[in-house]
Amino acid sequence: MLVSRETIRQILSSYEPRKIKIATICSHTALQIFHGARQEGIKTVGICTEDRRRIYEAFPLGCPDEFLVVDDPSKIPAGELADMNAILVPHGSLVEYAGSRLASLRVPMLGNRESLQWEADRGKMFEWLKAAGIQVPATLEPDKIDRPCVVKLAGAKGGRGYRVVSTPEEFYEHFEGMNVTVQEYLIGVRAYPHYFYSPIHKDGFRVAEGRLELIGIDRRFESNIDEAYRTQMAGLSFTPSFTVVGNELLVMRESLLSDIMDMGKAVVEAAERLFGGIPGPFCLETVVDENLQFYAFEISARIVAGTNIYPQGSPYTIYQWKEPMSMGRRIAREVKLAAKAGKLPKIIY
Amino acid sequence: MLVSRETIRQILSSYEPRKIKIATICSHTALQIFHGARQEGIKTVGICTEDRRRIYEAFPLGCPDEFLVVDDPSKIPAGELADMNAILVPHGSLVEYAGSRLASLRVPMLGNRESLQWEADRGKMFEWLKAAGIQVPATLEPDKIDRPCVVKLAGAKGGRGYRVVSTPEEFYEHFEGMNVTVQEYLIGVRAYPHYFYSPIHKDGFRVAEGRLELIGIDRRFESNIDEAYRTQMAGLSFTPSFTVVGNELLVMRESLLSDIMDMGKAVVEAAERLFGGIPGPFCLETVVDENLQFYAFEISARIVAGTNIYPQGSPYTIYQWKEPMSMGRRIAREVKLAAKAGKLPKIIY
Amino acid sequence: MLVSRETIRQILSSYEPRKIKIATICSHTALQIFHGARQEGIKTVGICTEDRRRIYEAFPLGCPDEFLVVDDPSKIPAGELADMNAILVPHGSLVEYAGSRLASLRVPMLGNRESLQWEADRGKMFEWLKAAGIQVPATLEPDKIDRPCVVKLAGAKGGRGYRVVSTPEEFYEHFEGMNVTVQEYLIGVRAYPHYFYSPIHKDGFRVAEGRLELIGIDRRFESNIDEAYRTQMAGLSFTPSFTVVGNELLVMRESLLSDIMDMGKAVVEAAERLFGGIPGPFCLETVVDENLQFYAFEISARIVAGTNIYPQGSPYTIYQWKEPMSMGRRIAREVKLAAKAGKLPKIIY
Repeated sequence: MLVSRETIRQILSSYEPRKIKIATICSHTALQIFHGARQEGIKTVGICTEDRRRIYEAFPLGCPDEFLVVDDPSKIPAGELADMNAILVPHGSLVEYAGSRLASLRVPMLGNRESLQWEADRGKMFEWLKAAGIQVPATLEPDKIDRPCVVKLAGAKGGRGYRVVSTPEEFYEHFEGMNVTVQEYLIGVRAYPHYFYSPIHKDGFRVAEGRLELIGIDRRFESNIDEAYRTQMAGLSFTPSFTVVGNELLVMRESLLSDIMDMGKAVVEAAERLFGGIPGPFCLETVVDENLQFYAFEISARIVAGTNIYPQGSPYTIYQWKEPMSMGRRIAREVKLAAKAGKLPKIIY
Repeated sequence: MLVSRETIRQILSSYEPRKIKIATICSHTALQIFHGARQEGIKTVGICTEDRRRIYEAFPLGCPDEFLVVDDPSKIPAGELADMNAILVPHGSLVEYAGSRLASLRVPMLGNRESLQWEADRGKMFEWLKAAGIQVPATLEPDKIDRPCVVKLAGAKGGRGYRVVSTPEEFYEHFEGMNVTVQEYLIGVRAYPHYFYSPIHKDGFRVAEGRLELIGIDRRFESNIDEAYRTQMAGLSFTPSFTVVGNELLVMRESLLSDIMDMGKAVVEAAERLFGGIPGPFCLETVVDENLQFYAFEISARIVAGTNIYPQGSPYTIYQWKEPMSMGRRIAREVKLAAKAGKLPKIIY
Repeated sequence: MLVSRETIRQILSSYEPRKIKIATICSHTALQIFHGARQEGIKTVGICTEDRRRIYEAFPLGCPDEFLVVDDPSKIPAGELADMNAILVPHGSLVEYAGSRLASLRVPMLGNRESLQWEADRGKMFEWLKAAGIQVPATLEPDKIDRPCVVKLAGAKGGRGYRVVSTPEEFYEHFEGMNVTVQEYLIGVRAYPHYFYSPIHKDGFRVAEGRLELIGIDRRFESNIDEAYRTQMAGLSFTPSFTVVGNELLVMRESLLSDIMDMGKAVVEAAERLFGGIPGPFCLETVVDENLQFYAFEISARIVAGTNIYPQGSPYTIYQWKEPMSMGRRIAREVKLAAKAGKLPKIIY
């Protein structure tokens, strides 16, 4: 059950704006989020199982000021966070752990929690991308598979369990009765631009009532597919898999910035029309073909792990900020400015 | 028609040296060039079509101080630039847009504009590389194609339209009557060192009358070839293409620095002999084989897009400069120092 | 012949602790080591053949304060270094050049020189990895080769001469009578975490009597295998080769940090049990499979070239240090702190 905007606004109205804390689960991009908050003078809360605490303590500048130790990270202690004056920052692991329960959490969250529902449901996600006028791969019914397709499991599972199939038979062999999506395989190279949409800034690249920023770009590094050519040369036969293991740096042709910014703009504008907007970070998972055409095959309506490459800022943020600006710090900066200006409800739900 | 050195020298002599501006077309490496100029206190002019202006305004620290809005970026307003006290910095897009007209532009340009003619004509380019004693792939006549070869279109087109062929028949099927070069396919990995040659510094790695610097190294990221292994695993049949989409970071074995510096040195010395030198940035497009032998298959006689990875300096500039040094900033620094020392004609033509 | 700890301790006791110098051979990671020492205020000595001196002078901030010019870099002038109050920092080239002679050098070395013997002997190396409880690829007798295997030459040769074989016949064709190891080929992607173990810090991620730090992660870039997919698409037939040409940046899923830190911890603890510990830098060469399981196929008991990506610090050191911290600087910092605290024998042998 989606908690109402009004309820969150009420909780938020009881917060002490100058003492806002930033909370998230200790995983995914938490080091960066805590580090960025520290740079902006914001206190942090790390939701953490006891055994992972030592990992974050090994990185003291990315370590939260306080740990909220839990037995089960899928059960986010919303009430405690609200009592701590904390805003929850959703990231990929948090979305995966909490799943549909996220919608009902009675704690203020950065961004628009409705966007996470549009991200989680691939049907809605494609509706959103199409409403933005962005080219997408064809989605096929299992019985109609007539070309190589990627079959994706529901949820943000980091690519685990994805598989390429070329016929209905192959599909049913592996995915009979499962909650999956079948997407046409696109020929090109992958590129993942990371955006930040701020409804409280009125300058720069204007979109809707605010400003769109490009924070960075990454490539995903997946096992075993991204060294499949090595394995293949070794004469081994194997099934390609797509488990995300890490991320790599990428800068793109400067002449593609028009398309990149315009795609981001269209996604924000479609979000405004469809479900009230998408303040904060998001990412488009794209393929660029040989004619430099972009196709988006996924959207992440929150911070992505590819931003972890750039805790000191990226080759794009350097043209926007004098200080090193990571996505984590950008989030904290937005919270700080919005709190000061009494505009937290614009970036929180 | 190549404008004479004397003409450019006369135009330059009318410039106010302490108020030199740096101008380029808003594309390719312009953000970096403007950002670097700003860091060095030099004003900038962005030649731009009206619709791209908003992209540069989205990156305020990489945005030019003034826009010179044009309808057609291939027609560079040389006279206006000269009136503005501006030096033109050529980059890949500028070379592609302006083509042979570059030679006749009556505006001072960074570097030696003759070098761009040697870059543009692949026959001359190979003459230059060979004069430098650098190993190159064999160039074949179409009728003599007896092994896998890359066919390259004339001009700096970022790899678009390149194709691998293995027989004369395959060649004629695709390139009959076109202005192309046929190069033997080299087995190894690509690496692109970025150099800066300064004729006004008398220390460091001495070459000709000046100093050679290694500014960075990149790998090109091309669609669809650089994820062809993924596509192939998906069982798709497709034609490999080589459109440059972006660039990735690379550091090379430190023991290879001897070869890298010596190749750069040889290129500068050959340029001195053949056409009066190559002050400023250049890049060697190389393949390194399994025996760590370098082969150069192309040379760029100006700033390359791979430098966009390093707007904060590279893992090589950090050993040369205390401040973050991008190629854009390096250019501006050279202009500033040359202007102060009355040596602009040494780095401008 | 391994020089005794007692002998080294005596030499070290004659050193002036406040004037310790850091020495290494001019190759591999020397720019970074000298640069880091300079940042920490420590003087440096570069062991160098005359012809390579100019390369290091081209990078003045990575250039040693003094050169010790030698004819043959495999003959390290231990006595002279001791007279200069210098500690030798071993790196990959130094290990390769000096080989078994390293053990007998009568000069204090950073780390535990016994660890280099365990690294050099692949049998011992696997004993060490297994003692640490880390999953490793199967090692096969040549006659028992029944699947694709990598055959590796003895020593730190940067991958040159490695080859994949699938049968005993193929093995004997290429490696008859040679000193090699046969390892099962692992399916997944490679990742190389760089660690630093400090026995003199008592906070952070506690291991043995000290602290373990993650300094960075890289991917190796090898010729011709890492562009084999390009060559293959061109229709060329060729033998894959594995010569390391350079290194690329990688950040890994934050949720893998537990495994990464625990592997490092286990390696340090096993080193303590087996041969008295491993103070200083080390690296695990791993493959991560589609189920996010790590397998280590090699260990480097000293600084690795992948750290050259991060002379300004990595996406991991930024969470540990306020100042830019490279591995080179980390080494120098440790030497400085140990010297101040009278604890040099803890990190030197």
